[in-house]
Amino acid sequence: MPLPQASLKTIVARALREDLGRGDITSEACVDPERPGEASLRARERLVFCGSQLLIEVYRQIDPSLEISPRCRDGRMLQPGDTAAMVLGSALSILAGERVALNFIQRMSGIATLTRAYVDELPQKSATRIVDTRKTTPGLRLLERYAVRCGGGRNHREDLSAAVLIKDNHIVACGGIRQAVQRARAAAPHTSRISCEVDTLQQLDEALDAGADVVMLDNFDDLRLRDAVKRAAGRALIEVSGGVTLERVAAIARLGVDVISVGALTHSARAVDLGLDLVV
Amino acid sequence: MPLPQASLKTIVARALREDLGRGDITSEACVDPERPGEASLRARERLVFCGSQLLIEVYRQIDPSLEISPRCRDGRMLQPGDTAAMVLGSALSILAGERVALNFIQRMSGIATLTRAYVDELPQKSATRIVDTRKTTPGLRLLERYAVRCGGGRNHREDLSAAVLIKDNHIVACGGIRQAVQRARAAAPHTSRISCEVDTLQQLDEALDAGADVVMLDNFDDLRLRDAVKRAAGRALIEVSGGVTLERVAAIARLGVDVISVGALTHSARAVDLGLDLVV
Amino acid sequence: MPLPQASLKTIVARALREDLGRGDITSEACVDPERPGEASLRARERLVFCGSQLLIEVYRQIDPSLEISPRCRDGRMLQPGDTAAMVLGSALSILAGERVALNFIQRMSGIATLTRAYVDELPQKSATRIVDTRKTTPGLRLLERYAVRCGGGRNHREDLSAAVLIKDNHIVACGGIRQAVQRARAAAPHTSRISCEVDTLQQLDEALDAGADVVMLDNFDDLRLRDAVKRAAGRALIEVSGGVTLERVAAIARLGVDVISVGALTHSARAVDLGLDLVV
Amino acid sequence: MPLPQASLKTIVARALREDLGRGDITSEACVDPERPGEASLRARERLVFCGSQLLIEVYRQIDPSLEISPRCRDGRMLQPGDTAAMVLGSALSILAGERVALNFIQRMSGIATLTRAYVDELPQKSATRIVDTRKTTPGLRLLERYAVRCGGGRNHREDLSAAVLIKDNHIVACGGIRQAVQRARAAAPHTSRISCEVDTLQQLDEALDAGADVVMLDNFDDLRLRDAVKRAAGRALIEVSGGVTLERVAAIARLGVDVISVGALTHSARAVDLGLDLVV
Amino acid sequence: MPLPQASLKTIVARALREDLGRGDITSEACVDPERPGEASLRARERLVFCGSQLLIEVYRQIDPSLEISPRCRDGRMLQPGDTAAMVLGSALSILAGERVALNFIQRMSGIATLTRAYVDELPQKSATRIVDTRKTTPGLRLLERYAVRCGGGRNHREDLSAAVLIKDNHIVACGGIRQAVQRARAAAPHTSRISCEVDTLQQLDEALDAGADVVMLDNFDDLRLRDAVKRAAGRALIEVSGGVTLERVAAIARLGVDVISVGALTHSARAVDLGLDLVV
Amino acid sequence: MPLPQASLKTIVARALREDLGRGDITSEACVDPERPGEASLRARERLVFCGSQLLIEVYRQIDPSLEISPRCRDGRMLQPGDTAAMVLGSALSILAGERVALNFIQRMSGIATLTRAYVDELPQKSATRIVDTRKTTPGLRLLERYAVRCGGGRNHREDLSAAVLIKDNHIVACGGIRQAVQRARAAAPHTSRISCEVDTLQQLDEALDAGADVVMLDNFDDLRLRDAVKRAAGRALIEVSGGVTLERVAAIARLGVDVISVGALTHSARAVDLGLDLVV
Repeated sequence: MPLPQASLKTIVARALREDLGRGDITSEACVDPERPGEASLRARERLVFCGSQLLIEVYRQIDPSLEISPRCRDGRMLQPGDTAAMVLGSALSILAGERVALNFIQRMSGIATLTRAYVDELPQKSATRIVDTRKTTPGLRLLERYAVRCGGGRNHREDLSAAVLIKDNHIVACGGIRQAVQRARAAAPHTSRISCEVDTLQQLDEALDAGADVVMLDNFDDLRLRDAVKRAAGRALIEVSGGVTLERVAAIARLGVDVISVGALTHSARAVDLGLDLVV
Repeated sequence: MPLPQASLKTIVARALREDLGRGDITSEACVDPERPGEASLRARERLVFCGSQLLIEVYRQIDPSLEISPRCRDGRMLQPGDTAAMVLGSALSILAGERVALNFIQRMSGIATLTRAYVDELPQKSATRIVDTRKTTPGLRLLERYAVRCGGGRNHREDLSAAVLIKDNHIVACGGIRQAVQRARAAAPHTSRISCEVDTLQQLDEALDAGADVVMLDNFDDLRLRDAVKRAAGRALIEVSGGVTLERVAAIARLGVDVISVGALTHSARAVDLGLDLVV
Repeated sequence: MPLPQASLKTIVARALREDLGRGDITSEACVDPERPGEASLRARERLVFCGSQLLIEVYRQIDPSLEISPRCRDGRMLQPGDTAAMVLGSALSILAGERVALNFIQRMSGIATLTRAYVDELPQKSATRIVDTRKTTPGLRLLERYAVRCGGGRNHREDLSAAVLIKDNHIVACGGIRQAVQRARAAAPHTSRISCEVDTLQQLDEALDAGADVVMLDNFDDLRLRDAVKRAAGRALIEVSGGVTLERVAAIARLGVDVISVGALTHSARAVDLGLDLVV
Repeated sequence: MPLPQASLKTIVARALREDLGRGDITSEACVDPERPGEASLRARERLVFCGSQLLIEVYRQIDPSLEISPRCRDGRMLQPGDTAAMVLGSALSILAGERVALNFIQRMSGIATLTRAYVDELPQKSATRIVDTRKTTPGLRLLERYAVRCGGGRNHREDLSAAVLIKDNHIVACGGIRQAVQRARAAAPHTSRISCEVDTLQQLDEALDAGADVVMLDNFDDLRLRDAVKRAAGRALIEVSGGVTLERVAAIARLGVDVISVGALTHSARAVDLGLDLVV
Repeated sequence: MPLPQASLKTIVARALREDLGRGDITSEACVDPERPGEASLRARERLVFCGSQLLIEVYRQIDPSLEISPRCRDGRMLQPGDTAAMVLGSALSILAGERVALNFIQRMSGIATLTRAYVDELPQKSATRIVDTRKTTPGLRLLERYAVRCGGGRNHREDLSAAVLIKDNHIVACGGIRQAVQRARAAAPHTSRISCEVDTLQQLDEALDAGADVVMLDNFDDLRLRDAVKRAAGRALIEVSGGVTLERVAAIARLGVDVISVGALTHSARAVDLGLDLVV
Repeated sequence: MPLPQASLKTIVARALREDLGRGDITSEACVDPERPGEASLRARERLVFCGSQLLIEVYRQIDPSLEISPRCRDGRMLQPGDTAAMVLGSALSILAGERVALNFIQRMSGIATLTRAYVDELPQKSATRIVDTRKTTPGLRLLERYAVRCGGGRNHREDLSAAVLIKDNHIVACGGIRQAVQRARAAAPHTSRISCEVDTLQQLDEALDAGADVVMLDNFDDLRLRDAVKRAAGRALIEVSGGVTLERVAAIARLGVDVISVGALTHSARAVDLGLDLVV
C-alpha cells in the first residue's frame, strides 16, 4: 500500500528544486543553524488526512537528521486541531521544507476528503464503487490515485495502455460499436476487460450485444439509468459517468450500478487546510 | 511572454509518459492509422482560456505532422461553444493526446478564470494587485503562475531564494521583528525587497520602524486593515493575505492596499470545462 | 501503432550517451566531415524486421541533416541481402550512429523473428494467442513488447499496476485461492480481469469456483492440459505458461487454449544479423 | 570492483518505474502489509551467478527495511538448488520487487554463464583473452560488461571515445589502411592503442607496416589465422573476431592469438533460470 | 546555510557518471578491495576552504561505508599543509572518488579565495558589499554562489526571474529609461527592487527620477563615480560594475557605494591547490 | 568533429532552466514581443573563438524561429571587434538567452585561447602534444575537451574507465611499480596503453623495465627531464606533467618529450570577453 519509493523520490526532488532554488534565504538569514525546533502538523478543518510519506520524504531530502513522527495513518479523519505528525530537529530545516510538504499534503488530503464525501453518500452495504478518472494533475497521477484510495474510493484504469475504454470518438472513427468492441477484443491484452461508453439506450443494447464487459453510461438522467440497469440485466458491469454530483450519488447507487466515476475527485478538489506550527 | 521551451518540453514529456505507457491501446485497436481527423477544442462554459503552448507541445511530441491552429490567445474570455483551437491530422494521434492536453488546459484555464474573477472585483482604475502565492502544485509552478498572469493577476516571489518574506515562525526563531528585518536586510541580495508578515497592529509598527519594504497583513479584518493602512502612511507597501474571498476584494482594494495575495488562485481553482471534439 | 515519441527520445538519447562519450574518435580521425556517404541496412539472414523508428531517431539525434528512407515496414519478413532502409548524408555521422542503431534493431528484430516462429506453429485459423510476459529487459519493455506485436504476438499486462495476476506466492500469503480471488476482485480496478495461476487440477477447480476470469496453467503436461480445458468448459479464459517450446505450440493450441505465454520471446531471443554497409 | 552506485541507482529506479507503475495491485490486494516473509533466491540450473548488487539495490529502493543476505559472490558457479541470497522482511515488499530483481539477475547471470563457457574452452594456462564487444543492450552496457568480467572474460574498449578501432568502413572512407592508422595515431589520445580490423592477409601486412598496435582479424578461418599469426610475429597484438563459436575457441587460442572477441556474450546470451521462492 | 541536498545529489551523480564511466579500471587493477586506507585533504597553498558537503556527497555516492571527518568549516582560511578533512575506509573507494571531489573543491575554494581577496580590500567597517553576477558556470551556479558567500561576498539576484535588472539593451528596446523603469515596476513582483544600469551621468539622473531602487554604474571611472554618488544622494542604492580590479576596490568603497559586483569572482577564478594524500 | 547532439541538448536545457526560472521578467516587462532585433556576437579582446554549437542550441531551445548565422568556425583567432555570429529575430528572445550563451562561449573560448597560447610556444614542427587532464569542470568535460581541441591541443584519456594511468597512490597501495604495471596490464582492456607516473629517475627505470607504454614524469625540473628522456631511449612515450608554465613549454618540447599535460587549460582558464550587442 505504500507509494513506490523510486517514483516518490523523483517527485519530491523536483518539487524541492522548484521551491528552494539555491536555498531559503529568509530562514538562513533569520534562524541560527544550531537552533532546535519542534513543529506539529495540524488539521485546521475537518478532513481526511493523506500524505505522511510525502512529509517524510520531503524532510529526508532536506535534512536526514530530522525526526518525523506520524501520529495518524493516511485515510484517517481528523478534526480541527488534531495533530497528524510531529517534526523534530533543526528549526532552519523545518522551515525550509514547510511549504513543499504542505503543498503535497493539502492537495492529497483535499482529494481524500472529497472522495470520502462521495463514499459517505453511498447507502449502507452498497456494492457500488466510487472511482477516479484519468483527469489527474500531470505528473502527480500516482499521488492522486493513492489519495482517492485513502478516501475510500477505487481507481479506474492506470493509463491508456492498461485497459481498453471505447469512447464516442472511437465509435465514430471505427464505424460503430460492434466493430469497435470486436477490434478492441482482438487487440487488447487478454487481461483487460473491454469497456464501452454509450450515450443512448440503443447504443447500450449494441454494446451489450457486442459483448462489452463494462458499459459506461455517460450523462444519463436517473430515469434512463433505471432503464439501462434493467436492460443490462447483469450481462455487463455498469459504470455511471458525467458530472455526478454528491447529491445524486445515493439515488444512483440504489439503482444497483457497479461503478460511479467522478473526474472532480482529482481535477477539482480544493486544498484542505493544514498547518505546520513551530511549537518550540 | 511565452513559457520557456526547455521546461515546457520536460513537463509535457513527463505527462505523456505517465498517461500513454506503451501507447493508447484503445485507439490503436479501433482507429485506422491512415484515417485523417479534425478536432476542435471548444469551451463548454464561460472561461478565460489558457494553455495554447501546451496544446502545441503535447501534439508535437506525439506526432509532429499534426497541424495545430490556435484560434485565440491565452487570456481571452471564451463563451460556451467558442473554439480555442483546431487540430488537423491523424485521428489516431489526435485521440492519443486528447486527455493530456485537456488535463493541462482545463487546469490552467481554471486558474486563469478564477484569477480574472478576483481581478474583476477590483474597483475601476484600482492600483491594487491580485497576486498568487507559493501554494502551487508541485512540479507545475511555472504553468500556474503563467495562468495567473493570463487571468490578469501578478506573481509573488518565484521561490524561496528569489526574495525575503519573514513569517511568524521566523520572528519567533529570530527573537523579534526588528532583529529579523535587520538580519534579512544584511543577508539578502540587494535586489530583494524585505517583506514582513504581521499579525497585529503592534507588530505592524515594529516592522515599519525596522524598515520593512513590504508589510503583509495576515488575517486582518476590514476595520484593522483600515487602521493599518493609516499607520503605514506610505512607508511600506501593504500586502493583504489570508483567506481573502471574492466578496471582500472590492472593500479591501478601496482601502488603498497595494497587494492582495490569494493562495486559492492556484491551490483550489476547479478545472473548467473544455472538450476536444472530433468533427470529422 | 508507432512507439510514443517522448519515451523513444529518452531511450535513444541514453543509448547514444552510453556509446558516444565525447564522440567517435576513430571516425573523427579517419573521415573527412564533408565526405558524403550512403549506407544500406541489410538483412544477413532470414528475419522479421523491426525497429525502423529507432533507426530514424538515432540518426535524428546524431545529425538531423541525414536522410533516412525505410524500405520496409516493421513486421515484414526479409531474406538475406534484402534492404530494410537507406541512410544518406555525412559519412562521419552515419558511422558514428551505426552501432547504436544496430544494437536496437538486431535485438528488436530478434524478438520479432522468434515471436513469428511461435506464431507460425499455430494451426491455421487457430484462435490461440502467443503472448509475452514481464520478463523483459529492464528499461526496454516498451520496445520489446512492440517487437512482439510486430512478430504477430500479443502483449500480456503492461506492468504490475495494469491488471491482476495471482501467483503461487500470493496464494500462500493469502491463505488460499478463494480468498485471493475475492480480495483481488474487491481491490482491483473494475477494468481488470482477474487471472489466477494454478499448479494442479484441484487448484484449477478452486479458481474456477472462485470466479477467476483467466486461469493460468503453469507447467502442465499435455495430458493434464486436456483435462483442464475440459473442466474449465468455457468458464474462464485458459492461459498456458511455463517453458513452452516451439515444438509443443501446435499441440497445445489444438486443445483450444486461449493464450500461450512465452517468457523466452523477450528474455532469450538472440540478436539477428543485420548490417549497415557504406555503399559509397 | 563493485558497480558505480550513482549509475546503479538510476538504472534500478528506471526499471522499477517501468514495472511497478502505481504499485503491485495484486500483492496489495492479497498480502497483508504486516505479514513477514522470507524468500530464497535459488539457481534452477547450473549457472555462474551475477547481480547481487542489483538484488540489494532493487530492494533498497522498494523497502529499505528488508534484510538482504547474499550467500555467494558474483562469479561463483552454482548448482541447481543452490541458494544465492536470502531476503527477509515484509512479504508484500518481497513480492513487489521479485520480477525486476530476477530480470536483472537472470540476464546478468546468463551473460556470466555464457562467458564462462567460452573461457573454459581455453587451453590450460592460455594467455588468450575472451572479450566482449560494443554489441550490448542499450542502457545496460555497464551491467553487461561487469557480467562478462564475472564470467572470467575481459572488456573491450568502453565506448567510441575510449580508444581507436579502425573498421572496414573507415578504411574505405579514408582511402587505405596506412592513412587511417596514421590519422588515428595523430588524433587519438596518447593513452589509446590503435586497433585495425583486417579482412585479408594483404591488409594485415599493411596494418602491421603502418604500425597498428592491435590487428583484428575478421572472419578468418583457422588456416589463414595460422598464417596471420606467423606474419605478425609479435609486432602487434592479435584479436580474432567474427562469429567465433564455442567449438573453435580452443583451436584459435592454441594459435597464440591474444584476444578473441565475441559479440554473442552480450547480444545473444539467454537468460538463465533462477527463482525467488517465498519459504515462509 | 547548507546546500540543498536534492540539487547536490544530482550535481554529484552527474559528475561521477562523467568521470567514472564503468569504473576506475586502474584502481580496480592495482588495489585490493579489502585494503583499508586513510587520506587527508590538505591545502597546498594559502586559500579559503569551501566544499566540505561536496566531499561528503561524492564519497557517500561512491561508498557509504567511508568515514568523512571534516576538520574545518567552509569559509575558513587555511595555510599550506593544513588539513581540511580526513577520509577513512576502503583505499579503492578513496582513490575512485579523488579527482571528482578535488575538481569540486579546488574550484569552489578558488572562488571563495578570490572573493575573500576582494572583501579584504574593503576599508574597515565598510558597508559596501562585494557581490557576484550571473556569469557563473552553466549547471553549477548553486555551488558558485555558495562559494562567494563563503568568501565573505554576497549574492546578486538568483536568476532572470528573481528580480528586475534593466540593461542598456532593454533601454534601447524600450525607448528610454523612464519607460523601462515604469514598465518594469508595473510588471515585476512587488517583492523585487528595480535596478537600472546607467552608462552616463545623464542616464543616472533619468533613472533616479524614474524611481529606480538601484542604479548600476557601468564602467565609471573614479571621478564620475564620485559625482554619481553625490547626485544619487541616497535616493537609490548604488552598484558599481564593470571590470573592477582588486586595486580599485578600496577607493570605490570609500566613495560610499553600496555594492560592487564582480563577474570575475565566478567566471575567472583559478582553481586553488589542494591534494588528497593517502597517508596509510 | 561536432559535439554529440544528445549530450549538448541536455547540457543547454539544464543551463537555461538554471538561469531562466519562470522567464526573463525584465525583458518581458520592457520589450514588446513583436519587436524584431538583430544582435552581433563580437570579440572584445584577442581570442580563439569556440562554442558556435552552443550559441545555436541555446537559441533553438529558447525560440526556434531565430536565425543564427555563424561568421567563423570554432578554433579561429578573432581580433577585438571581429564578429563571430549574428542572431536575427525577436529581440525579446535574443535578450532572454544572452547570458547563458555568453557563459558557455566565454568559458570555452577562454580554454581554447589558453590552449593556443601553450601550443604557440612549441618549437616549429615539434611533435610534442599539449594535452588536457581530468581536471575539468564537473558536468562540462565534453565541452572543455572540445575547446582544448579547438585551441590546437589534444585530449588525454576520457575518464577513469577509458585507459589506465597508475599514480603514486596506486603504487603505494600495490606495493611497487612492477606489480602495478603487471596487474594493470592483466586487467585493462587490450585497447588501452599502460601509463605510469614516476617521481624519480629510479622509478622511471622501474616503470620502463616493467613495460609501461607511457611514463609520466611528475614535477621534474629541466635537468632531470633531460636525463629521463635519455634513459627512456624510445622504450616508452614520455609525458611531462605538473605545473608546466607557458615559459617552460619550449624548453621541455625541445627535449623531445611526446606529451605535455596541463591541468590549467581547463581548471584555471579565465573567461575571455565577448559581447552580444543588439545592433537594431
